[in-house]
Amino acid sequence: MQNGDRFVAMDGRGTSWLAEIKGEFAYILEAIDISTELPVTVTLIAALPKGNNFDSVVRSCTELGVSTFVPTIGDRTLLKPSSHKLERWRKIATEAAEQSERQIVPTILPTVSFTTAISQSNRASARYICVARNHHPSLWQCLQAKSSEEITIAIGCEGGWTTTEVEKAIALGYQPVSLGRRILRAVTAPIVAVSLVVAAFES
Amino acid sequence: MQNGDRFVAMDGRGTSWLAEIKGEFAYILEAIDISTELPVTVTLIAALPKGNNFDSVVRSCTELGVSTFVPTIGDRTLLKPSSHKLERWRKIATEAAEQSERQIVPTILPTVSFTTAISQSNRASARYICVARNHHPSLWQCLQAKSSEEITIAIGCEGGWTTTEVEKAIALGYQPVSLGRRILRAVTAPIVAVSLVVAAFES
Repeated sequence: MQNGDRFVAMDGRGTSWLAEIKGEFAYILEAIDISTELPVTVTLIAALPKGNNFDSVVRSCTELGVSTFVPTIGDRTLLKPSSHKLERWRKIATEAAEQSERQIVPTILPTVSFTTAISQSNRASARYICVARNHHPSLWQCLQAKSSEEITIAIGCEGGWTTTEVEKAIALGYQPVSLGRRILRAVTAPIVAVSLVVAAFES
Repeated sequence: MQNGDRFVAMDGRGTSWLAEIKGEFAYILEAIDISTELPVTVTLIAALPKGNNFDSVVRSCTELGVSTFVPTIGDRTLLKPSSHKLERWRKIATEAAEQSERQIVPTILPTVSFTTAISQSNRASARYICVARNHHPSLWQCLQAKSSEEITIAIGCEGGWTTTEVEKAIALGYQPVSLGRRILRAVTAPIVAVSLVVAAFES
């Protein structure tokens, strides 16, 4: 960029400014009031899938507007991730937030057990949803009532959550929902779930 | 598999049978009436994205239940695919159909130009949707009226369809829709669009 060029400066926490390069410095001209953020705060509790597949979940779901990711070790999680992973996911989230023109970089929490992940689920203004098998109502039906400012979705990896996990979640106030009749991969399912939340709240 | 083992035989076109191994042969015991197919026929016209990203679109959208893929060269498509690609995509679709427990292997048509892809869009029982920019109604709103047996969705690659392409589609009866306020990658956008169609029709 050259002297006189203008650009948008963001703090990654929701505020943007129009700025201009003058010599070696950039000066703020004015605050910008743009928002591509969702009208609802979405937290994604996701069981870590095989290999590097959580990279792809973080990338796509950041594009879609997720606020917080909670990587989780479920009963069916095969490998415990190395501590380098968290740094990697945060980098991916930052890049994806920029590319998708978001104002906020989502938070990625350190990996926790499923029990810990769902234990904090008690805010009255929030709605808690757990993706389970297909005898439950569909997520689409469940979202027709858009009655909250926060949504937490818990979604399993290959094979889904175990019956015990689903029961634990239900006991803590999670509503069990289905994503349809076909088997989705651990990479696809979170995108599908978050797409529906986005569509329901942004429309 | 061993003598006496039973398995499900499928023809990839919607029919399944319970079969049993006897010696060197397998015998059909009975027809099976299961369906994980969508109640609507979904055709995806997709501009080919960069690199091998269409592989991922075929894989995820097969899981979600798409019937026909129309790989398309749009104004913003950078590379014409080699003829080997078609074979590769068909292999991916076959594997994904099996993994997601579908009865039908989706059809992947040879790559065509955008004009050719949208030119056949005139069946009265079908609905034609074109993903465009965000001043259009959302796909979610548009799907609240589930009034057709077939849906064709045209979705662009990086940068979306050009204004000229969207106008051509509208002239042929396509309804322009938005997928939300953030910029989605060419890999994410088709999954989002198809997720909403699936949810609307299966719920």
